[in-house]
Amino acid sequence: MERELTSERKLIIENDFKRGFIEYCGFEGEIPESGHFISRVKVMPHHRQQDGYIHAGVMATMADHTAGYAAYTLTPDDFRILTIEFKINFLKPAFGEEMFCHAKIIKGGKQILVADSEVFDLNRGGKYLVAKAIVTLMAVHDSKMKKIPLS
Amino acid sequence: MERELTSERKLIIENDFKRGFIEYCGFEGEIPESGHFISRVKVMPHHRQQDGYIHAGVMATMADHTAGYAAYTLTPDDFRILTIEFKINFLKPAFGEEMFCHAKIIKGGKQILVADSEVFDLNRGGKYLVAKAIVTLMAVHDSKMKKIPLS
Amino acid sequence: MERELTSERKLIIENDFKRGFIEYCGFEGEIPESGHFISRVKVMPHHRQQDGYIHAGVMATMADHTAGYAAYTLTPDDFRILTIEFKINFLKPAFGEEMFCHAKIIKGGKQILVADSEVFDLNRGGKYLVAKAIVTLMAVHDSKMKKIPLS
Amino acid sequence: MERELTSERKLIIENDFKRGFIEYCGFEGEIPESGHFISRVKVMPHHRQQDGYIHAGVMATMADHTAGYAAYTLTPDDFRILTIEFKINFLKPAFGEEMFCHAKIIKGGKQILVADSEVFDLNRGGKYLVAKAIVTLMAVHDSKMKKIPLS
Repeated sequence: MERELTSERKLIIENDFKRGFIEYCGFEGEIPESGHFISRVKVMPHHRQQDGYIHAGVMATMADHTAGYAAYTLTPDDFRILTIEFKINFLKPAFGEEMFCHAKIIKGGKQILVADSEVFDLNRGGKYLVAKAIVTLMAVHDSKMKKIPLS
Repeated sequence: MERELTSERKLIIENDFKRGFIEYCGFEGEIPESGHFISRVKVMPHHRQQDGYIHAGVMATMADHTAGYAAYTLTPDDFRILTIEFKINFLKPAFGEEMFCHAKIIKGGKQILVADSEVFDLNRGGKYLVAKAIVTLMAVHDSKMKKIPLS
Repeated sequence: MERELTSERKLIIENDFKRGFIEYCGFEGEIPESGHFISRVKVMPHHRQQDGYIHAGVMATMADHTAGYAAYTLTPDDFRILTIEFKINFLKPAFGEEMFCHAKIIKGGKQILVADSEVFDLNRGGKYLVAKAIVTLMAVHDSKMKKIPLS
Repeated sequence: MERELTSERKLIIENDFKRGFIEYCGFEGEIPESGHFISRVKVMPHHRQQDGYIHAGVMATMADHTAGYAAYTLTPDDFRILTIEFKINFLKPAFGEEMFCHAKIIKGGKQILVADSEVFDLNRGGKYLVAKAIVTLMAVHDSKMKKIPLS
């Protein structure tokens, strides 16, 4: 599943990671090795839910997006990654000051890829697995991406 | 599965809905009837991903949170709802100016509830089912909610 | 999503349905309309688990296989259907004398199809929704099916 | 998550594993250590589907049941395990002469447990991960198990 990842492409992918909703959520990402991706977020009050825990939606977004970019490290430059579906289990309440997510591709392929994506909560010096997702992704050639109609 | 929902409790739930991450995401919610919940969002540039589509994480957050509040309409006042897990399929690219989500409880219960949660994209006068989730929820008594340690 | 389904092809599909593990499990199937499939099983002691309930694996097999054949009604003759993944929630204990499953395609497509698959328990004159699955399927051309090596 | 597992209880669990549908499917199981369970099956023609691959339902049944018994090693004697839901991804076609499944509990608890369950295909001397599931389970006290009405 390994593919040569130039430092130039590595940088392109890491910058591409943090746009739109992901920038709004404050996530940053990096590539530890091909087929993997790690993201981090400093937890702010606006990441929490009504009871003070970190919102399940923040963890789900992180698990999904990080999985997509783990896949992106394995696909040719002219392909884009779309999420077909994912499933996520919330294993413990998360309430720390920082979270990170490690996604790794467990099934590569030209079209369908599958990632295992784990979210960890950092609090009071400890690191806790708080959510685990399996994400099914599809690599789509640029030319086949549905164009967004101008509204 | 029906439970008397006073207009006072209805208002409390609708206000409780839009706090923290959900307020940050700009979602609003209302209760059409007991066991159901509807949420809406006006789509902004910060809801999109790198290719201009609405981010899967926005839809996942909406599907999860709306499901939780559909459950909340059925549980006693002194219970809170936590998400155990969910699974979401993305059926079509979403790129419209507005989305809404309709969640309904398909299995009630004192402890474990299950919701079917559908997300629709409104664009160019049409309404399209873009994502479908099944969400497993747990009702937890206030007294058993894990307290968040002061950091 | 509709496609002309000749009575000849309808029969081929219905017979194809009940082979191998499915025949062993005793399931029978029929096509009510294109994009849908219905299967049935008369429950025997060997369908139950250690506590006397119908085994989750029986319901999962039924939900998956019925979904696959709902997809098969929509694809050209020279394509086969593979399951990419599915998720199933068990909503109530099932213990009746008969079960049936209704699968319908909620997202068609040339390659990826998604089905909603519901399993019902028939007992003491009642019909109960006992399991609900979402199934992601892939249509693969005959020529691209991985050949099974002779062992 | 460790709990003393006497050799007597170990034997009871291993025998309890292979009843009803599981016996019919020909699965055998053993406990390598508390919180884990391993099952095996010798693949027969009746485990296959219409194209000769091992049926997804066989793998799903194995993933679910093995997860349930991994949970069972951690719960008191007077509790039973029910599956709330599971999700399974099929990563490769399986067609070998033997399969095994390794389930491990990734979240323990008095009520809700979560297992990671992996299915491997043994063919031509190799061992291949062919399916991966996440299974959400509930421990229920004997006295609260819904009694099956006599029909």
